[in-house]
Amino acid sequence: MIPKAGGPQCGRNPVAGGVDGLETPIPVMNRSVVENNLLRWQSRCDRIGLKNRPHAKTHKMTALAHRQIALGAAGITVQKLGEAEVMADAGITDILVTFNIVGGAKLSRLAALARAADILVTADCPQVVDGLAAAADAGAPVGVLVECDTGGARTGVQSPDDAAQLALRISSAPHLSFRGIATFPAPGGRRKMGEFLAEARNRVIAAGCACGCVSAGGTPDMWRDAGLETVTEYRAGTYVFNDQSVITSGACAEENCAVDVLATVVSVPTPDRAILDAGSKSLTSDKLGEEGFGRLRGTEARLYAVTEEHGMLDTRSLPRQPRVGDRVRIIPNHICPVINLFDRIAVEEESGVVRFAAVDARGRVC
Amino acid sequence: MIPKAGGPQCGRNPVAGGVDGLETPIPVMNRSVVENNLLRWQSRCDRIGLKNRPHAKTHKMTALAHRQIALGAAGITVQKLGEAEVMADAGITDILVTFNIVGGAKLSRLAALARAADILVTADCPQVVDGLAAAADAGAPVGVLVECDTGGARTGVQSPDDAAQLALRISSAPHLSFRGIATFPAPGGRRKMGEFLAEARNRVIAAGCACGCVSAGGTPDMWRDAGLETVTEYRAGTYVFNDQSVITSGACAEENCAVDVLATVVSVPTPDRAILDAGSKSLTSDKLGEEGFGRLRGTEARLYAVTEEHGMLDTRSLPRQPRVGDRVRIIPNHICPVINLFDRIAVEEESGVVRFAAVDARGRVC
Repeated sequence: MIPKAGGPQCGRNPVAGGVDGLETPIPVMNRSVVENNLLRWQSRCDRIGLKNRPHAKTHKMTALAHRQIALGAAGITVQKLGEAEVMADAGITDILVTFNIVGGAKLSRLAALARAADILVTADCPQVVDGLAAAADAGAPVGVLVECDTGGARTGVQSPDDAAQLALRISSAPHLSFRGIATFPAPGGRRKMGEFLAEARNRVIAAGCACGCVSAGGTPDMWRDAGLETVTEYRAGTYVFNDQSVITSGACAEENCAVDVLATVVSVPTPDRAILDAGSKSLTSDKLGEEGFGRLRGTEARLYAVTEEHGMLDTRSLPRQPRVGDRVRIIPNHICPVINLFDRIAVEEESGVVRFAAVDARGRVC
Repeated sequence: MIPKAGGPQCGRNPVAGGVDGLETPIPVMNRSVVENNLLRWQSRCDRIGLKNRPHAKTHKMTALAHRQIALGAAGITVQKLGEAEVMADAGITDILVTFNIVGGAKLSRLAALARAADILVTADCPQVVDGLAAAADAGAPVGVLVECDTGGARTGVQSPDDAAQLALRISSAPHLSFRGIATFPAPGGRRKMGEFLAEARNRVIAAGCACGCVSAGGTPDMWRDAGLETVTEYRAGTYVFNDQSVITSGACAEENCAVDVLATVVSVPTPDRAILDAGSKSLTSDKLGEEGFGRLRGTEARLYAVTEEHGMLDTRSLPRQPRVGDRVRIIPNHICPVINLFDRIAVEEESGVVRFAAVDARGRVC
């Protein structure tokens, strides 16, 4: 199953003309940049003794997940059961679903998955734990991490004490296996995260539960040591491709951005703007703290607006006005929801050869 | 090809349990609300003598396009060649692509389409017209509308004079057929639009070109008469489903919103928030001028934040705090990019029966 070279398994036939032969808009992935991103991060994990469990929500590609594992990842993370099913079908056997699984249909699917792979989930309240306990069966226990809200203000228990109580509830459920604690930290919130996790871990252990796993995540802070003292496992997603928001966070440079959206200039109605054939249906409307909706690679020119199929590029800072027919590369603000819009993306080799690769878990919305 | 009842052709098998049997997140379309939206608009068009050419970018469903035509629409509008191809394959024969078609591959596809259906496109500059002229062939002329920028500041010629000059260029190209002018007006900019279109039409006619079609669009202003004096054809898209932005514009009420995203409460970490399993990968990050990322139907509670698979609902205004496992209906800010995220949606009949319907032009990104 593991491809020999790094990255997605592609269609057999190269695209005639390489990148120039692609119709736009289309995300174009540079394979060697991806490979470098994976290697650099795995090497840091190996050096500081972190288990690497990359988040596949970014790429949604089974072959990239296989590549991450081949390079040393202990398993993968996903955000939806549907993604876990696609990954398990592709032979990946160690999958963490960082989501409260709720409702009969989803719990049945989880139980089925647990019979096919080593499945871990997170939980942040008794109702979720009780649902998991009712669904899990003896032959296929489900591993559970207690999710902690360490400042991100999304899901998660609100105190280290609550974490310990929930750990006890999980430990006493027949077919659940308590494995530890997890959090998704607010960017820049690593110190607070570290304090919460250390305290929660202490209370969990004091309550009599083994706390083998302390799982954190996030690409923006992945290169920072602060707060990682008790962390045993790290879930980074965006790092595989990177994007404008990661550049802004300081966690990568433009040369580490592996996926651009290739677009065509379709109109230049005034001297200060060029209109591209890439709008919110290929770049999304996700600002993620950025100005505008994407940046022209190698420049400071931003898309100042998008409608569904048009992107409005402010060309005032460019040395020359783009012309109708010019093809341009846009670095998206946030690459994860961009990939999610496409059934396939283009993959460019160092040789210039381009093939299509399927985004095989796209559309697995539930 | 035309379904007997209104709306999309659905899977044969009803979903067991109806809406309660659906896994979340999933858009749920109420068929009778859609039918009512289509009928009300067609009836206004008939009354004031407007040709109805609905924009299929919203639903991306061939069966809904057929339904619109069965109820009296003259043809449809699409924003991408890929959408036009899907619609033509489904037997729709009158299609306007409101987009500058640029580049050899796309122009070849356009020429092929023109051999299968009556294809119209827009153009806003000589380069685009020259590309169209080079691609069109004698057996299958391509109809062209000159796109005018009447205040929307996207694509379009900048003056009525430019419109007349471009009309002349189209008229003199061998296999192009000049059909008139088009615009996408800025919401609220109808007066300016009306003035621009009247002046452009006059100059086009003065230049010796027949101006049979004056095409405008937009759901927010679709019920307003101002500015429509010279308009012969109207392209509305969102009206088929409506959404929060249309409510805010005053063009519909909540009862006219035909598609909710059904979601499940997966966490209630604090008394002031509930976390849903619908985030930017099912509701998008498109704010479209709204506060937050969607509204709980029947209430004023908004999603104050989304991450990819989580929606954060401010529950402070609700009479009771939602519980984990509750299922809720969210009215999206902007329904068009939401539908674009799903391979299929659920369709609810008045009887309560629910079936899935394919979003057949989804993924046709080029």
